[in-house]
Amino acid sequence: MQNQTERTSDVIASDRVEGTVVYGADNAKMGSVDKVLIGKRNGQVTDAILSIGGFLGIGDEKHSIPWSKLNYDTELGGYKLDVDEEEIRNAPRFDPNDTDRVYDREYQTRVYDYWTATPYW
Amino acid sequence: MQNQTERTSDVIASDRVEGTVVYGADNAKMGSVDKVLIGKRNGQVTDAILSIGGFLGIGDEKHSIPWSKLNYDTELGGYKLDVDEEEIRNAPRFDPNDTDRVYDREYQTRVYDYWTATPYW
Repeated sequence: MQNQTERTSDVIASDRVEGTVVYGADNAKMGSVDKVLIGKRNGQVTDAILSIGGFLGIGDEKHSIPWSKLNYDTELGGYKLDVDEEEIRNAPRFDPNDTDRVYDREYQTRVYDYWTATPYW
Repeated sequence: MQNQTERTSDVIASDRVEGTVVYGADNAKMGSVDKVLIGKRNGQVTDAILSIGGFLGIGDEKHSIPWSKLNYDTELGGYKLDVDEEEIRNAPRFDPNDTDRVYDREYQTRVYDYWTATPYW
């Protein structure tokens, strides 16, 4: 159905992005999107906060990933991050208990350096 | 503190946008952001879903509002929608039980016509 396709194709509610699976280069599940960071004024998503590994949320690694590194894959029904496990394990992470860390310019500078992405600031 | 300013100035996590107060032309509280709609590929926020009125979530009106109509107001600490109560009451709303309505092109066409905003599709 054309209408159904339109409904599902271009936009997604923020509360549905939260929880979307992220796949690695080998198409295996790598983690999931916790939430996204949004420019307050221009409404542009800058980063996805990824939860990786752990068990029942315990021992998760948290990573801020520049949005430009994620590609929505219709077939997988999730985002693809074209890196292998070692690359993600070596990426700048932050303490899951320090959620405000993602707003920290020093942390984000390391993130954007690592991922060779153009900073949003 | 400079660092604190930077932390709070440019980006906001999606789970914090959800619940942010929206003020009307008279700076009175008009409602709050339920969630936002995000372009799956380009990561651009297209709409804010607003909850208006009601009591304890009962009898709320739901509105999809083009993002360009909302301006973040640092002093108010929320988004400002520069309209009066009548204008928002007359805007295309949807049944709170039909959350998928926001993905419907026919509904969104009426929304973008009403708000004279440039469609994202």
